[in-house]
Amino acid sequence: MTPAVAVLTEERILDAAEDVLRRFGPTKATVVDVAKALGVSHGSVYRHFPTKVALRDAVARRWLDRLVEPLDPARDTNGPAAERLLRWLERLAAIKQGLALNDPELFATFSQLTAEAREVVAAHVDHLAAMITEIIADGVRSGEFVVTDPVTAGRAVLHATARFHHPLHAAEWADPAVGSELHEVWQLLVQGLAARP
Amino acid sequence: MTPAVAVLTEERILDAAEDVLRRFGPTKATVVDVAKALGVSHGSVYRHFPTKVALRDAVARRWLDRLVEPLDPARDTNGPAAERLLRWLERLAAIKQGLALNDPELFATFSQLTAEAREVVAAHVDHLAAMITEIIADGVRSGEFVVTDPVTAGRAVLHATARFHHPLHAAEWADPAVGSELHEVWQLLVQGLAARP
Repeated sequence: MTPAVAVLTEERILDAAEDVLRRFGPTKATVVDVAKALGVSHGSVYRHFPTKVALRDAVARRWLDRLVEPLDPARDTNGPAAERLLRWLERLAAIKQGLALNDPELFATFSQLTAEAREVVAAHVDHLAAMITEIIADGVRSGEFVVTDPVTAGRAVLHATARFHHPLHAAEWADPAVGSELHEVWQLLVQGLAARP
Repeated sequence: MTPAVAVLTEERILDAAEDVLRRFGPTKATVVDVAKALGVSHGSVYRHFPTKVALRDAVARRWLDRLVEPLDPARDTNGPAAERLLRWLERLAAIKQGLALNDPELFATFSQLTAEAREVVAAHVDHLAAMITEIIADGVRSGEFVVTDPVTAGRAVLHATARFHHPLHAAEWADPAVGSELHEVWQLLVQGLAARP
């Protein structure tokens, strides 16, 4: 009997690419390294991902999708929208800050990778803003918030909290004051969301 | 008659240091380079600035002080505090964004310099937050804002607008939407400042 040969799926290529990026860093990692790690020709990899950029974008996309999975607003619908928004923002900050503090090398690798994957990051940012919009829209329905355009408000809340979740600010996250500073910003934002114009 | 020898003032040393940093970059520039540019011994420079770090910090401090000079809230006291705050934030964003776009090399040099001058930057951030606090306190006096702690609120407004003035975000400033995005965040913040708890 010959040993079973695993089918070369996109998932397996992405697993190998993530591992190669982690080991060699985004500057040095190549498609040939990924193919070698899988024991296949680089042509086989290119059949799934036509370019190196396409492969990197796919790795970045999968990584960011995994990051935001626990943030789905449908997972936490209890209590006032203002409190849900605080928990959501704190969860987002904890995910990003946790990565930066616990695995700084992997964090740096993916920060570099995503800095080059502009369209992937734009979709990620849209996704995050849409989740905030969902919480705000729930708050409007319950009469807690007074917002005519929850889409714009969601984006504004995401931008206003960049300091607490944007990887660029990682060096500031070691400051123990960062938690109470997020709370201060949230306080002002939810007052704004609840205010009658 | 011998030619007049200019007195070695701190101001002259800082001018020379700024020029040297600009030419060689923060990684390569040394105190000896600064002394050479002034035609003095490095000992003469050290009499004014005991260490290389002290000299760099002084350059960073002067540069940041110059940047914030046009932002003195006493220069623009017309109209509602909410509008003053918008103008102030737009002026801050214009100063930082203008530098980043018009003289990216100098901007990169000073960004690197200030990234290492943590205490100087902390004082700069406190100074900016204090200016916002001044505008908010005026708004409280006029009955426009309802804020029990303008110091905390000033810091929160500065943090909430980091995306539009923090040098880390320079790469995002080429996006033409950045102006309207600042406006959206400001809108939410002033609604929050004006809201009765």
